[in-house]
Amino acid sequence: MSINSFGHLLRLTTWGESHGPAIGAVVDGCPPGLALDEAHVQRFLDLRRPGTSRHVSPRQEPDRVRILSGLYRGQTTGTPIAMMIENVDQRSADYPEPAPYRPGHADYGYDRKYGLRDPRGGGRASARETAMRVAGGAVARLVIPEVSFQTRLVEIGGVDDSAQWDSLLDEARNAGDSLGGVVECTASNVPPGWGAPVYAKLDSELAAACMGINAVKGVEIGDGFAAARNRGSRNADAMRSGASFDSNHAGGIAGGISTGQPIVVRVAFKPTSSIGVPVPSIDAAGNEVDAVTKGRHDPCVAIRGVPVVEAMVALVLADHKLLHRGQCG
Amino acid sequence: MSINSFGHLLRLTTWGESHGPAIGAVVDGCPPGLALDEAHVQRFLDLRRPGTSRHVSPRQEPDRVRILSGLYRGQTTGTPIAMMIENVDQRSADYPEPAPYRPGHADYGYDRKYGLRDPRGGGRASARETAMRVAGGAVARLVIPEVSFQTRLVEIGGVDDSAQWDSLLDEARNAGDSLGGVVECTASNVPPGWGAPVYAKLDSELAAACMGINAVKGVEIGDGFAAARNRGSRNADAMRSGASFDSNHAGGIAGGISTGQPIVVRVAFKPTSSIGVPVPSIDAAGNEVDAVTKGRHDPCVAIRGVPVVEAMVALVLADHKLLHRGQCG
Amino acid sequence: MSINSFGHLLRLTTWGESHGPAIGAVVDGCPPGLALDEAHVQRFLDLRRPGTSRHVSPRQEPDRVRILSGLYRGQTTGTPIAMMIENVDQRSADYPEPAPYRPGHADYGYDRKYGLRDPRGGGRASARETAMRVAGGAVARLVIPEVSFQTRLVEIGGVDDSAQWDSLLDEARNAGDSLGGVVECTASNVPPGWGAPVYAKLDSELAAACMGINAVKGVEIGDGFAAARNRGSRNADAMRSGASFDSNHAGGIAGGISTGQPIVVRVAFKPTSSIGVPVPSIDAAGNEVDAVTKGRHDPCVAIRGVPVVEAMVALVLADHKLLHRGQCG
Amino acid sequence: MSINSFGHLLRLTTWGESHGPAIGAVVDGCPPGLALDEAHVQRFLDLRRPGTSRHVSPRQEPDRVRILSGLYRGQTTGTPIAMMIENVDQRSADYPEPAPYRPGHADYGYDRKYGLRDPRGGGRASARETAMRVAGGAVARLVIPEVSFQTRLVEIGGVDDSAQWDSLLDEARNAGDSLGGVVECTASNVPPGWGAPVYAKLDSELAAACMGINAVKGVEIGDGFAAARNRGSRNADAMRSGASFDSNHAGGIAGGISTGQPIVVRVAFKPTSSIGVPVPSIDAAGNEVDAVTKGRHDPCVAIRGVPVVEAMVALVLADHKLLHRGQCG
Repeated sequence: MSINSFGHLLRLTTWGESHGPAIGAVVDGCPPGLALDEAHVQRFLDLRRPGTSRHVSPRQEPDRVRILSGLYRGQTTGTPIAMMIENVDQRSADYPEPAPYRPGHADYGYDRKYGLRDPRGGGRASARETAMRVAGGAVARLVIPEVSFQTRLVEIGGVDDSAQWDSLLDEARNAGDSLGGVVECTASNVPPGWGAPVYAKLDSELAAACMGINAVKGVEIGDGFAAARNRGSRNADAMRSGASFDSNHAGGIAGGISTGQPIVVRVAFKPTSSIGVPVPSIDAAGNEVDAVTKGRHDPCVAIRGVPVVEAMVALVLADHKLLHRGQCG
Repeated sequence: MSINSFGHLLRLTTWGESHGPAIGAVVDGCPPGLALDEAHVQRFLDLRRPGTSRHVSPRQEPDRVRILSGLYRGQTTGTPIAMMIENVDQRSADYPEPAPYRPGHADYGYDRKYGLRDPRGGGRASARETAMRVAGGAVARLVIPEVSFQTRLVEIGGVDDSAQWDSLLDEARNAGDSLGGVVECTASNVPPGWGAPVYAKLDSELAAACMGINAVKGVEIGDGFAAARNRGSRNADAMRSGASFDSNHAGGIAGGISTGQPIVVRVAFKPTSSIGVPVPSIDAAGNEVDAVTKGRHDPCVAIRGVPVVEAMVALVLADHKLLHRGQCG
Repeated sequence: MSINSFGHLLRLTTWGESHGPAIGAVVDGCPPGLALDEAHVQRFLDLRRPGTSRHVSPRQEPDRVRILSGLYRGQTTGTPIAMMIENVDQRSADYPEPAPYRPGHADYGYDRKYGLRDPRGGGRASARETAMRVAGGAVARLVIPEVSFQTRLVEIGGVDDSAQWDSLLDEARNAGDSLGGVVECTASNVPPGWGAPVYAKLDSELAAACMGINAVKGVEIGDGFAAARNRGSRNADAMRSGASFDSNHAGGIAGGISTGQPIVVRVAFKPTSSIGVPVPSIDAAGNEVDAVTKGRHDPCVAIRGVPVVEAMVALVLADHKLLHRGQCG
Repeated sequence: MSINSFGHLLRLTTWGESHGPAIGAVVDGCPPGLALDEAHVQRFLDLRRPGTSRHVSPRQEPDRVRILSGLYRGQTTGTPIAMMIENVDQRSADYPEPAPYRPGHADYGYDRKYGLRDPRGGGRASARETAMRVAGGAVARLVIPEVSFQTRLVEIGGVDDSAQWDSLLDEARNAGDSLGGVVECTASNVPPGWGAPVYAKLDSELAAACMGINAVKGVEIGDGFAAARNRGSRNADAMRSGASFDSNHAGGIAGGISTGQPIVVRVAFKPTSSIGVPVPSIDAAGNEVDAVTKGRHDPCVAIRGVPVVEAMVALVLADHKLLHRGQCG
């Protein structure tokens, strides 16, 4: 895994800052002969883009993707697929300089790491980068047509009853505050045998993929932390003739390899760090100044995290399908 | 990340099955000039080996490590450090054939992946492989002498009061059952600036490292899933002059890069899958047979997971120290 | 090394086909704080582009590079540097379909590998891809300001007297034929200690870098094949006090590690495969048809190979500077 | 490509110094179900080991390989195959300390890189490491049973008439001197379609593989440097119905992808650097001292290079077979 690349045989490399001219991705290693066009990618991007409901940022990002390479007559050629989205709504005035390090953001770490950074809208650390993960995931899905996904929010602010979410979100937004959430992705029809025994375990790679999404602080496979509170006899997934299972505590992975059961990943998003409530902080010179977000932000980033989680899971599964085929034929 | 290797610049490759002649590791990319001997590695291996209390497997694995390369006059030379432990207690009679697929184990997945497998004691999927992670971690620590670790069990069977653990474990063992647990590792004095923005985020790599440990089903950074239930205003780690923080909900990482605060990782271990309670299963021929473990196993694998988690965290941090130095000088 | 990426810490990923909308590159891992602008990259691209003399293809490719990310106020930020060149002169009518497999080209192999290919101008296999290597090399040079390069043609058509080259090239072009050539790159002021002992030897990586350039069939370090015809006593580079050397048969690398002497790489380019002389071939249906090139091509690709070789050498050296700093501080 | 690892899906990692307790290799990513035993590997090691004729070093290295993992009942399991050879003939007295930097050796570079080194017999830089390449190649051959190899010396000391080699070698050895040589490897029955378009071109990877062998200074594919002296019309490999070719100037690779013709690689070995003729040099303190080799060395390392070249070519081809299967099915 390189710094801005993800995957072994199917590799996603992304680039771009939120307020630069464009963001982009290169998908390398895609099998040839898959039907792909911009509309297919756009469909998934549209699920993620802001401005779609009152609970997500009102920014207007049309996020119109262009595919610049790797296609011929509507089919993938096996060569790198480059995708690009131009940034059209770059209101960097929302990000004045000098500015306080925004707690929970990459600001301080970047300055300490690189000695300088692009402060406009988080630069490379902006959640805008996840658009290209979604684009990459749209390609990955073509590699694994046998797999179907169901991805959904299962908690907002600790509440799993979705009927309460609207009012919770309204309350938080009105208070200038934000809420966390949990996203669950279920990938069905993954055949048994994908994954690898030790350092490229399927669950290990899913964990890396999902923990690397902006604002994610926890990842579970199957029962996750609840398994740590269970007894072995109850946590066991008994098997029956025909390789059916009585339960799926394992979340479809044992020993790093898929079992044929649905793969279940749960992902914890922290509450949006950019909030209207002032938080004590410092600026680059070390002066104490409150961080207050005046720009346009989501009260709960987990909402827009749904397609991103699904994209990352798709990328991991597609990569491991190719890895498995490479080693085991 | 290759299939049996871990890390970018500091790379751990491990090999070996639990009942083969030996297990081993190669640590590549270690800086030169570090004082290293077998006693140093052995000290960490001894923390992990079975037979040390009544709550861990009574197997006798002296786990005597030999360093076979990469040293000259007590110092690392910068070339690969090969380590090996011979397997001396190979009671494969405990693992009769044909055998049921043990639920929760890699057995079924391996057979479906590779078409054959080494059935003795889990073969490559055995937790014995983690001895070499501990050995690798012992080397990694030398690369990051500035970092100090505190790693401990914080929960067994859902109970965080350690005074109750002895009786819980006795009860489970006597019932032929097992318990899960949660391990927390805190790495202090990690300077700000380690990590990377997008696909080699420090938290992403810690998640991969820890989720890849046998029996792990969940990983959290900082508040983890609790953050998903918190509000943004309470989850914010306010900063003060001198780059001090009021709190550490983030667990020492923001935007994938260390902040200088202690890095906190929590790891959920499922209850040991090998239990005395019969669990319905099938054998390789598809016949329904109960899986019952008669061999020697740990009632709670999280106990021996403590040094393994610490080793994996050390490997990630050491690797990122070198990566950071490579890119940023 | 991934399929369309090159390098360890400083990684170049390229994409794009010669007749698609654009070609591009992503340089990942670049140190922060280096002064970079489009004019710097353009200067090197201009050395490579066609249409600059009567001995190179008269195609008009303005090859105007845009930098789309990784810069802030004229400095690299440490995040991926994306560069793109739009393809403005796409005369795909020069490449009719169905067409014979052009001998010496990738056509037949691509069809057998992928089952389909983009036939326009060689698609991904076009030498146009090397523009992005030159762009990547322009960034790499900034990482190694201490190194100076001298790269030049030393042979055309087996003749090392450059006074004869004009007439040789005219004669070949008039005959619809082409000539090979040899390019020599000397990198001076590389400090001793860059490289690695075994599988990332500096010479090994230079060989990969240069053999991967279109039309290259041979690579030598230092005396190369002449060393194989020499005696050990004459091939030895004696050392003197102050770490000076009497000679440089080794080409600045011993045991895979730089010695501090100039690094000398010689690269053999075959004659251009696209020629006006008919060559018997077959088409995708297996019919025998002559391949005759009517389009615009270089009579000697080695001429335009000069900046490409230098770029690849710069990428390898910059990468190894970072690797060395990462491991050895 | 990591520092001491080679390959993408089929990865060879080697470790060990010539005078340490052992040398070893880990082959990761090997397909399961291949018949493998120590005798198979030993057969190839025996071709390489010293002491087999009067023209190779009289050292006694039984080089008895042990396979320590990755096998079950005579078949590969898909998990890492660890191999080890104990060093039994460690006459480090032949390598006194302090010693002059031996010209042509890694000595000086290692000291400048690492600040210290294992001076016994070249340590990690010793050609003894190539034994593990041969062992790795023995495994790789099993992955590509369709491919047959013919590898031979084609030149010693610039002479291609093998009838003269005995006297040439005797003369050089008696004079305390050494000779270079050229090894040619032909791999037949490689199907068309292996390789990759840009940075993992089959020829690029073969160049890296062979240039990384100790003492190698040049690599050619097909006609190599002779192609640079040829005309395009004569260098073209005309194709005929049935995908047959009239010639093989290309050496079986076009555009980085195999054409189905025999793959031909030529490798230039410099004359052995360790010679009895004194060569001016310096020691670590900077004092001028002659380097004179009194130990046991080969007058022409190319002789023992034959099985090493073949092993490296086999590793590259096997890796690319798996890569091709992974991406293209």
